[in-house]
Amino acid sequence: MPSHPDPLVALTRKPDRAGDREVLDSVLDEARVGTLSTVVDRLPWSVPMLFARDGDDILLHGSSGAGLLRHIAAGAPVAFTVFVLDGIVIADTLFNHSANYRSAVVRGTCVKVDDSRHVLEMMSDKMIPGRVAEVPAATAKEIAATITLRLPIVDGQWLAKARTGGPGVDVDGWTGVVPVRTVFDEPIGYSDGEVPESVRRLV
Amino acid sequence: MPSHPDPLVALTRKPDRAGDREVLDSVLDEARVGTLSTVVDRLPWSVPMLFARDGDDILLHGSSGAGLLRHIAAGAPVAFTVFVLDGIVIADTLFNHSANYRSAVVRGTCVKVDDSRHVLEMMSDKMIPGRVAEVPAATAKEIAATITLRLPIVDGQWLAKARTGGPGVDVDGWTGVVPVRTVFDEPIGYSDGEVPESVRRLV
Repeated sequence: MPSHPDPLVALTRKPDRAGDREVLDSVLDEARVGTLSTVVDRLPWSVPMLFARDGDDILLHGSSGAGLLRHIAAGAPVAFTVFVLDGIVIADTLFNHSANYRSAVVRGTCVKVDDSRHVLEMMSDKMIPGRVAEVPAATAKEIAATITLRLPIVDGQWLAKARTGGPGVDVDGWTGVVPVRTVFDEPIGYSDGEVPESVRRLV
Repeated sequence: MPSHPDPLVALTRKPDRAGDREVLDSVLDEARVGTLSTVVDRLPWSVPMLFARDGDDILLHGSSGAGLLRHIAAGAPVAFTVFVLDGIVIADTLFNHSANYRSAVVRGTCVKVDDSRHVLEMMSDKMIPGRVAEVPAATAKEIAATITLRLPIVDGQWLAKARTGGPGVDVDGWTGVVPVRTVFDEPIGYSDGEVPESVRRLV
C-alpha cells in the first residue's frame, strides 16, 4: 500500500497511482458524466457532458446550436476528465485522510461522427441498457439537430489513476474506509403504463 | 416544465436551465469532487480535485510538488466544473431521453491561502463533518507540504444550471425519472478500535 501524505486530496499526481488501460476503461464505462475542457480565446472553458466509450473512442453529443461544441468539432484541442469516487479514507490524523477514486484524463482532438444514430444508440445503451429496442429510433430531423463527436483514445495522450485501500500509515485507534456508491432509486412515473423492462432492470 | 429536445444530453446550454446562486451553492456543497481546468502551452489541462466552498470562495489544496497546482497558484486562469447527476429521464422516444442534473462552472484566478490549516479543516469538515475535533491537527511540516488555494466566486464569472422533472413532452406509454443518489456504505475497518462518531454519523 503506497503512503499518501496528501491531506484529503484524492486526485493528485502520484506515480504509484498511475493506472493502466484497464483502469481507464473501468472509469470511462462506469462514470456517466465527464468534463469536456477546451481553450477559447486563450482561456479555459469546460462543460460537463454525458458520454459513452466505444472501443478506443469516447462518444459525445450535443445540440448543433451549442457554440462550444462547434468550436470543438472544428478541431480545438480538448481534455476530457472523468472520475469515480470509491471511498472516503479515514485516518487517525487530519493530514492523512484521503479518498479512494479512479480517474482519467484523455487529451486530443474530436472528430465529427457521420453516423449520429450509432452515437445516440451507444449513449442510450450505456445509460439504460436495452432501452434502444423498446422505443422508436431518432428521426432524420432529430439527427440533424445533433452534433456527434468522438474523441480517439490515443496512446501517450491519456492518464488513468486509481487509489485503493486503507490509510496505509502506522495508526493509533480505528481507521478505515467508508465506501461510496451511486444507486438508482425506484422510478417515478410521469405518465401511465407499465414500467419498461429496461428501467426495471436498472433499479 | 421546459421542453428539451436534446437526446440524452444532460448538460447543454439552455437558457431555461440557467440557475441562480442557490443552485450554485447547492451543487458546490453537495459534490465532493470537481474538475479544475487551465491552459498549459495553449492546450487544455484538467485534474479532478476534492474541494469545499467557504462562503464566496472555492477552496482547493494539493501537494506543493504538483506542477499544475504551482502553475495555477502563479495566476493561470482556471475553470472549475462541478455536477451532480440527480436522475435519468425516461422518454417514449430515444431522442427525448435526458438527465436531471445540477451543474456549475466557476471561472477566475486562484489566490494562494496563507492559512492552510483553515483550508484543511474546511475540506475535512465537508467530507466528514465533525472529524476535525476527533484527530490531531496538521503539523507545521504537513502544512508546509501543501499548497492551498481559493478561487473567488465573482459575479459574471460563474454559471449554474439545473434540470428537474419528467420528459416534458407528449407521450405514449410510461415515462418517468429514475432518481440517482450517492450513498455511503458500512465502514470497513483497517485497524482496531471503535468506529469514530463522525464516521458513524456519515453512514
